[in-house]
Amino acid sequence: MFTSERLRQQIHFLREIDNLKQILRQTVLIKDQRQENDAEHSWHLAMLVMVLSEYANESTIDIFRTIKMVLIHDLVEIDAGDTFCYDEQGRVGKVERERKAAHRLFSILPSEMMQEYIDLWEEFEAMETPEAQFAAAVDRLQPLLLNLYSEGYAWKKHGIKKSQVIERNYHIAEGSKILWELAKNLIDEAVSRGYLIDA
Amino acid sequence: MFTSERLRQQIHFLREIDNLKQILRQTVLIKDQRQENDAEHSWHLAMLVMVLSEYANESTIDIFRTIKMVLIHDLVEIDAGDTFCYDEQGRVGKVERERKAAHRLFSILPSEMMQEYIDLWEEFEAMETPEAQFAAAVDRLQPLLLNLYSEGYAWKKHGIKKSQVIERNYHIAEGSKILWELAKNLIDEAVSRGYLIDA
Repeated sequence: MFTSERLRQQIHFLREIDNLKQILRQTVLIKDQRQENDAEHSWHLAMLVMVLSEYANESTIDIFRTIKMVLIHDLVEIDAGDTFCYDEQGRVGKVERERKAAHRLFSILPSEMMQEYIDLWEEFEAMETPEAQFAAAVDRLQPLLLNLYSEGYAWKKHGIKKSQVIERNYHIAEGSKILWELAKNLIDEAVSRGYLIDA
Repeated sequence: MFTSERLRQQIHFLREIDNLKQILRQTVLIKDQRQENDAEHSWHLAMLVMVLSEYANESTIDIFRTIKMVLIHDLVEIDAGDTFCYDEQGRVGKVERERKAAHRLFSILPSEMMQEYIDLWEEFEAMETPEAQFAAAVDRLQPLLLNLYSEGYAWKKHGIKKSQVIERNYHIAEGSKILWELAKNLIDEAVSRGYLIDA
């Protein structure tokens, strides 16, 4: 069926990652409060990068690389699962589980592609380059938007406090001071509407 | 809540397009035969572009622009809905409905961004540039893969014939001769497994 081993590996990978659509997050969609999955989330992040990149602290970020990063950043959850960001126990061993998953998944690809994707994923995780910091910023901002516009569904369900959301999201400032200003306003709005506990 | 009218428009757009996750396609996911939605599909296409761009007929295509095109290509379906590609009646008036949708959606954005997105979408629709031709190729190949690996679920449900699939998909060759060779092999495999009617 495949004209080369290389193409077979690439198609095998593209088939395998269909499973990202099965990984559910705690955040729900605005319209019907269905849980969002990781593929939808990754698409939405890519759109946030496209639309909001002008607000990155570093005006020269490589938008293309940032988009590639957000498109692949959650693939490891196909094996490792999604960990709710306020679940301290679930986070134990997360790094190890995800690194193992990255190696299994990306090694389906031809070797030089595998290396490119592992490098992208490691860059995202390390949050040190301006691109990774901006990617991390939109990865925090997007669920804030969904939470606010779904009337605080996931926050109310888990009894989340304002201080937890601040603690979780202040990293946004490293990627974008302007988006962190926005995020703080969204959080205050959520408190005033009773979606978040004011503590 | 917003520090500028520009940022308010951008966030409004990013909120509005959350609804792409509500638009169901006929194709189903490999693992559980759930219908795929347009956001998942758009993410998957971006991954196909990343992984398979080496097979584009034109070796110099702008991969970044191609990815942007596939990320936004289905947004018009938020208003216009998804039309099953083998539904001849459903296709009547599709172009007009989608153009109207493009203008409503993209005009939520600041005006120069609106123009950029309308241009990208028009480029995709016209299928004339090498980027648009490659984007169209992966837009055809991805459902072929899902159909084959979900044991022909959507094809069998609608009693689809091999000749219909060939007719629908031979445009792949304009973007990538190699991926069209692959597609023909996938189609033959589907016929031999009884997923497609051999006619």
